[in-house]
Amino acid sequence: MSNKEIPYKIYLNENEMPKQWYNVRADMKNKPAPLLNAATMKPITFEELRPVFCDELINQELDDVNPYIDIPEEILKFYKMYRPAPLVRAYCLEEKLGTPAKIYYKFEGNNTSGSHKLNSAIAQAYYAKKQGLKGVTTETGAGQWGTALSMACSYFDLDCQVYMVKVSYEQKPFRREVMRTYGAKVTPSPSETTEVGRKILAAHPGTTGSLGCAISEAVEAASLQEGYRYVLGSVLNQVLLHQTVIGLETKTALEKYDISPDIIIGCAGGGSNLGGLISPFMGEKLRGEKDYRIIAVEPASCPSLTRGKYVYDYCDTGMVCPLSKMYTLGSGFIPSANHAGGLRYHGMSSTLSQLYDDGLMEAVAVEQTSVFEAAQYFARIEGILPAPESSHAIKVAIDEAKKCKETGEEKTIVFGLTGTGYFDMMSYQKFNDGVMSDYIPTDEELQAGFAGLPNVEA
Amino acid sequence: MSNKEIPYKIYLNENEMPKQWYNVRADMKNKPAPLLNAATMKPITFEELRPVFCDELINQELDDVNPYIDIPEEILKFYKMYRPAPLVRAYCLEEKLGTPAKIYYKFEGNNTSGSHKLNSAIAQAYYAKKQGLKGVTTETGAGQWGTALSMACSYFDLDCQVYMVKVSYEQKPFRREVMRTYGAKVTPSPSETTEVGRKILAAHPGTTGSLGCAISEAVEAASLQEGYRYVLGSVLNQVLLHQTVIGLETKTALEKYDISPDIIIGCAGGGSNLGGLISPFMGEKLRGEKDYRIIAVEPASCPSLTRGKYVYDYCDTGMVCPLSKMYTLGSGFIPSANHAGGLRYHGMSSTLSQLYDDGLMEAVAVEQTSVFEAAQYFARIEGILPAPESSHAIKVAIDEAKKCKETGEEKTIVFGLTGTGYFDMMSYQKFNDGVMSDYIPTDEELQAGFAGLPNVEA
Repeated sequence: MSNKEIPYKIYLNENEMPKQWYNVRADMKNKPAPLLNAATMKPITFEELRPVFCDELINQELDDVNPYIDIPEEILKFYKMYRPAPLVRAYCLEEKLGTPAKIYYKFEGNNTSGSHKLNSAIAQAYYAKKQGLKGVTTETGAGQWGTALSMACSYFDLDCQVYMVKVSYEQKPFRREVMRTYGAKVTPSPSETTEVGRKILAAHPGTTGSLGCAISEAVEAASLQEGYRYVLGSVLNQVLLHQTVIGLETKTALEKYDISPDIIIGCAGGGSNLGGLISPFMGEKLRGEKDYRIIAVEPASCPSLTRGKYVYDYCDTGMVCPLSKMYTLGSGFIPSANHAGGLRYHGMSSTLSQLYDDGLMEAVAVEQTSVFEAAQYFARIEGILPAPESSHAIKVAIDEAKKCKETGEEKTIVFGLTGTGYFDMMSYQKFNDGVMSDYIPTDEELQAGFAGLPNVEA
Repeated sequence: MSNKEIPYKIYLNENEMPKQWYNVRADMKNKPAPLLNAATMKPITFEELRPVFCDELINQELDDVNPYIDIPEEILKFYKMYRPAPLVRAYCLEEKLGTPAKIYYKFEGNNTSGSHKLNSAIAQAYYAKKQGLKGVTTETGAGQWGTALSMACSYFDLDCQVYMVKVSYEQKPFRREVMRTYGAKVTPSPSETTEVGRKILAAHPGTTGSLGCAISEAVEAASLQEGYRYVLGSVLNQVLLHQTVIGLETKTALEKYDISPDIIIGCAGGGSNLGGLISPFMGEKLRGEKDYRIIAVEPASCPSLTRGKYVYDYCDTGMVCPLSKMYTLGSGFIPSANHAGGLRYHGMSSTLSQLYDDGLMEAVAVEQTSVFEAAQYFARIEGILPAPESSHAIKVAIDEAKKCKETGEEKTIVFGLTGTGYFDMMSYQKFNDGVMSDYIPTDEELQAGFAGLPNVEA
């Protein structure tokens, strides 16, 4: 640790911002298992993915060799509009906790999408535009990804069609309006506009939808329209790649002040934020240069890492997507109501799954009420009202800082504050009214999810 | 202009942040007229204000002599949690407009209150705490001020009671929940909890309230409780004083890159943002050191500067507050529905009123639909979804930039982007649905407001 005084917020200069994304797969000895074609159950090829994804994004998806990939100039320009994101020293939180720990958080919420999702949205929109496409389709759960994509498409003048999980569509009308303000077309899912949607509606009348189901609809919608492709906001390797701007900026900011973290914490749904934050640090760990404790935090109600199986599974409910080897609860697992909508996904990034399986990171599951307690506590001390998703990381960061108080250890904790909760006030209202409930799936419920897993020899 | 490359966002270092507020009244030859005691119609004294305001804030309110006032260490510390605010070069907007103008905006929306209001809220809460008070009362219209105050009170562990204009309370339940998350008690106004509220309800059953009415209730509530004082988020001299951190940071950032603005633009409701932004520049103008065009932008539906009278008037509907000499539409003027709720106030800061009357700044009134058109245009290009209030400044900044395109002049335009519109999506929805309407009061309606003006010889 140097003698430099550490400011409340470390902002990089624009010329210190990363000009390349870092591809952690290049440094992994055990590579993430390849995606499988659902028809052939063989590793999917570039050509087979072309009807669904943009060409350049397929290249990024399949590339587990090149460690650095240039960020195109147009994307760098957009990044400069809302980045660099600050690395914040949580002085007030440390003081309130009375902990000897040093706590930092990388705050990705200072943009209208309200989260880190914009980092990949702008990249995906750029490659779609470059390929001469007319538009893209996608799904959104909590609404952060859909908002981010609508902003990115508006910037590049691309059509944007969002399938929004019906329960979110109804409970978050204002998210929908932000997307509309950016020109996106938003459809509640499941809908009558796709075959898979109609099937799901017939099988489950009155369903309020799920992320897996909305994915199936968006993929079908892209395939039915000339000049359209499907884009996804998490889980995929390409998304983790784009999100490494989070970790790269964090690392540069820490190095500027000679700070070396002991623990790095991030919330994990599909893995986009966590993967982006930890990749550059994991790279050092993989290359044997440094060691860090890395902790993924997931909701106890949807515990893919802590209670799932590491097997091949479908990424979506309609089983139209390729299969991915990942920690999963089964694509048929219906996550219970949880206010951290962005973490309600049955699977996990295949890259993170492999790293977790190799013992390179830990995982912990936390319950909803304790997460909102941490969120409120943090908001009142650090000012920022956090997204429910991000608050999972806050909860565990506070827990670790409290342990330091007991042991007297001056550990340096870095966590990802992925976004703000401004569009999640209905959840906060439940918490404020004292009517929030916790839910942990029973072993029987998990078994039901596992029962639907495809039989694939990995 | 220097040869330094100007980044997309100019962030000051923490040690470049202002350590003193600037009191523009000290440099004014024609001082703002003093507040009058409503009972005696004589200039109000320190002692007469003590039951209502905190002591130190009264000192600041009455001080028109000292140009600089130290910012206490505790407030500086809080400022560092969310400041400095970036001065953004609107490169993308300039390119889209094809204008030779250079456009900058000072963005105050990167905090959970969503606006500049936090700058004064934390100062007022600090002085209340320092005086040993238990809590404060206030009113809020659009909700930005109430949110900011709830955050500030939570930080200093003060009780916070907010009277929220009923129409906002009902239309913005999420604003209310943010305040509750920070521990504030929120009451829709007019309410049965105060005498003035009961009177207004009796006279106007079914009224959805107004800012002037909520002020009356908050003042009464403070007077009825031991250890409570009333605080206000705009209009007052003390508020403009605290808000000068906006202008001071802006000036330092511009000077760092040798930029001298030609035009400075801000939206104007009660005047807190505009006053804070322009004060240091106005100081130079008053001292004859420099000249700037300064433009206040107000809604055509509530045009206090452009169509009001410069006379003494009550600051509130219940006439319990002191009188202020200001541009006013009459405290009985009921502003029509306007989605920029924060600009719906019948009067204007007495300091800004005097400066305007002395011809030191201009004013322009703009209609609602054109404001939302500018807001949407800006959001799609610059990424940030602006508050309706702030969008008044955007509208005029774009107009001025377009004039530069016609004339070829390379003017430098700076405007205040006071906040984000994340809690205003109901208004955006009306705009997106094409059902937003414009309203300009008729001369007869204005005459009705003027008829209620008190007869005071200034």
